[in-house]
Amino acid sequence: MSLKYSKLGARQKESDIARLMTMALQRPDLLSLAAGFTDTDSLPLDEVAAVVAKLAEEGDRSPLQYGTNQGDADLREILAERISRQDGLSSKNGYRPDGFCVTNGSQQALYLAVQTLCDPGDIVLVEEPTYFVFLEMLRGLGVTAVSMPMDCQGDVDTQALEELLQGYEESGEISRIKAVYLVSYFANPSGHSVSRETKQAVVDMLDRREGRIALLEDAAYRELYYETPYPAESCLAASAGRSAPVFYTATLTKPFASGLKVGYGYCSDMDWLGRMLAVKGQQDFGTTNFCQTLLARAIGEGIFDRHLDKIRNSYQAKMNVLDEALRFELAAAGWIWERPLGGLYLWLTAPEGVETSFDSALYAACLEEGVMYVPGDLCSAEQKKGKTIRLSFGVLDHQSLREAARRFLAATRACSLKAIGS
Amino acid sequence: MSLKYSKLGARQKESDIARLMTMALQRPDLLSLAAGFTDTDSLPLDEVAAVVAKLAEEGDRSPLQYGTNQGDADLREILAERISRQDGLSSKNGYRPDGFCVTNGSQQALYLAVQTLCDPGDIVLVEEPTYFVFLEMLRGLGVTAVSMPMDCQGDVDTQALEELLQGYEESGEISRIKAVYLVSYFANPSGHSVSRETKQAVVDMLDRREGRIALLEDAAYRELYYETPYPAESCLAASAGRSAPVFYTATLTKPFASGLKVGYGYCSDMDWLGRMLAVKGQQDFGTTNFCQTLLARAIGEGIFDRHLDKIRNSYQAKMNVLDEALRFELAAAGWIWERPLGGLYLWLTAPEGVETSFDSALYAACLEEGVMYVPGDLCSAEQKKGKTIRLSFGVLDHQSLREAARRFLAATRACSLKAIGS
Repeated sequence: MSLKYSKLGARQKESDIARLMTMALQRPDLLSLAAGFTDTDSLPLDEVAAVVAKLAEEGDRSPLQYGTNQGDADLREILAERISRQDGLSSKNGYRPDGFCVTNGSQQALYLAVQTLCDPGDIVLVEEPTYFVFLEMLRGLGVTAVSMPMDCQGDVDTQALEELLQGYEESGEISRIKAVYLVSYFANPSGHSVSRETKQAVVDMLDRREGRIALLEDAAYRELYYETPYPAESCLAASAGRSAPVFYTATLTKPFASGLKVGYGYCSDMDWLGRMLAVKGQQDFGTTNFCQTLLARAIGEGIFDRHLDKIRNSYQAKMNVLDEALRFELAAAGWIWERPLGGLYLWLTAPEGVETSFDSALYAACLEEGVMYVPGDLCSAEQKKGKTIRLSFGVLDHQSLREAARRFLAATRACSLKAIGS
Repeated sequence: MSLKYSKLGARQKESDIARLMTMALQRPDLLSLAAGFTDTDSLPLDEVAAVVAKLAEEGDRSPLQYGTNQGDADLREILAERISRQDGLSSKNGYRPDGFCVTNGSQQALYLAVQTLCDPGDIVLVEEPTYFVFLEMLRGLGVTAVSMPMDCQGDVDTQALEELLQGYEESGEISRIKAVYLVSYFANPSGHSVSRETKQAVVDMLDRREGRIALLEDAAYRELYYETPYPAESCLAASAGRSAPVFYTATLTKPFASGLKVGYGYCSDMDWLGRMLAVKGQQDFGTTNFCQTLLARAIGEGIFDRHLDKIRNSYQAKMNVLDEALRFELAAAGWIWERPLGGLYLWLTAPEGVETSFDSALYAACLEEGVMYVPGDLCSAEQKKGKTIRLSFGVLDHQSLREAARRFLAATRACSLKAIGS
């Protein structure tokens, strides 16, 4: 006999990430274009050590003490000022520090949001494609992800979305829809940023539903632009004066150091924030105070932004290396993708006749050549058998990126030959 | 109109801790014997800075990268060796690193355990008194806490517990009971450690139920003994060869630095562990890798244990200061408490006629005098109107402890006079 689990416990199964990681570990020769990690060599070790040394010099031990559940007050003030500025707001009309909660990465912020909104069987509307770890989280909570209709620009087709919502209203199922999830800047995996018009249209659509459906905005890559910030304010800004509650989540991991594991959320609905904080209080009653202090210092002293400038250039260069290594041959073979203006991913669409799933000939050929990618169907709510691929260029150095590209091209050629042969 | 929350979201309310903290913030003159914090002055700032400086010297940036979901491999090896040694096991027959998960404090370990085991309406059996944050977590998840019968030594009355379980079996409700929660060493709040006999008896009782009920062992204060470790192995050790699944949780926060916010759990049931890890993967996919590395280094280089020796002496001294400042007068007035052999708390029982709840005359008198305590009824599953008080001596220095004691005595006197007068 064994433990009888809760419904949540019983529903858990091995995650796709775990599967990918196990694969990678079994093949140390493998070059992974799958892992969504950041570049290790550029991690700010000396900068962090300098901040810690300064703390030690000052003798203030409180960073090593428990912090508050909601998060370090200095950090929340800094974030309030930062996000307000990003949205073109002054401190007078900007976001308030007490609307922020500091979390264990933006992942926890998203988890708290879904936990407090959704019962098993409820629906969250997502883009196609979307962030696959978010899809895994929904599955783990028994929540259904439904893809919204998209237009040719990769934006939500807001007219079709309105019709979709009306369909749910007519069938009496609208109350199952608890949230819309948008990855608004340089998205994982598509590299796409949501236009101002789309953001406003979605906010207005939820406003017409009188605030019963929330907007989860995932702005994790907002600061990882290459040359200029994406010129649209957040959904949060678009929701000013509207009744659609918005929870804006972002992170200090990828822009600085993922090992510090600090993210945050800003909630436009204080009652909802209170409930998320109550749940966080039960999960951990406060994200590591030490890492929060390090980050508050790093941002306050300009270290964070100097580092960001460096890595923006670095990621743009890596993107170019991978893109150039692939483009000539793959474009000729019918592959399509856009060069992103930020973020860590290329999002490729395969030509007619080529499949890309875990069980496809291409995936097998890649494994044989020694390269790994993320099949695009992981990034689709309906897990539609795909023709898409996510390639991450964040981790590998230029030489390894070129070699990984060479292996990927070899794999695509091997598949074409097989297809011709059969 | 507003958001329609999930059942979990709708059930959240302001936590007791939040209430206590708000009170404290509103009265900066207040001396708090309520907060379960550790001593700030002894926090190992220089030691942590030294470890970070060494990391920077070595130039290994991987601590600032994402880690794995399960936790740093070096740290898990260190923990496996450490807990095995504490339970008198050699590395050959001891605990395996892959049975460990590293979490955001032991709080997250407990949360994952309850999430994967308990649906709303399920039952967890707890000691009377028990850790009040665990009770808040159960309430937040809609799980019912039921106090087990206790004996005069403050141990679970295992015979009465067997009868209690049989009662549930007869009424057909046994399947609601998912776990037994024991705080096994220098417990918060009672200071009590569970005897070897009781541990074995509880394990055997669950073994007879063929592993359908889990044992959650909270060993958070195991290493915070004053002079010698409590001479009983863990419930985990007692469960060897039995079918009762045990999840042993503990922490690296209080023994070293709470601001690092790293804890861990060891699970004797690998299927259960897998499910908890899947959920953790959705909550955060990995506790801060940087803090894990710091701790692995600190433990490996003896820094952690040297610090522990220092703070054991320090906490014993503080306990003595508070105990001596109170004992003469309170004992004469009929108050009863034991001097603990470890941990951070005194657990007082008031004399006949004196109540100690938030709404009691004593609580009000204390606030007026400028001192705060935790009413014992927060620590009882049934929130029985109490005659108990938890006093924390972890934070305040000796002078403040004496002043806090003076104020507490003044409050008790004021209440006696009022009682006599009325």
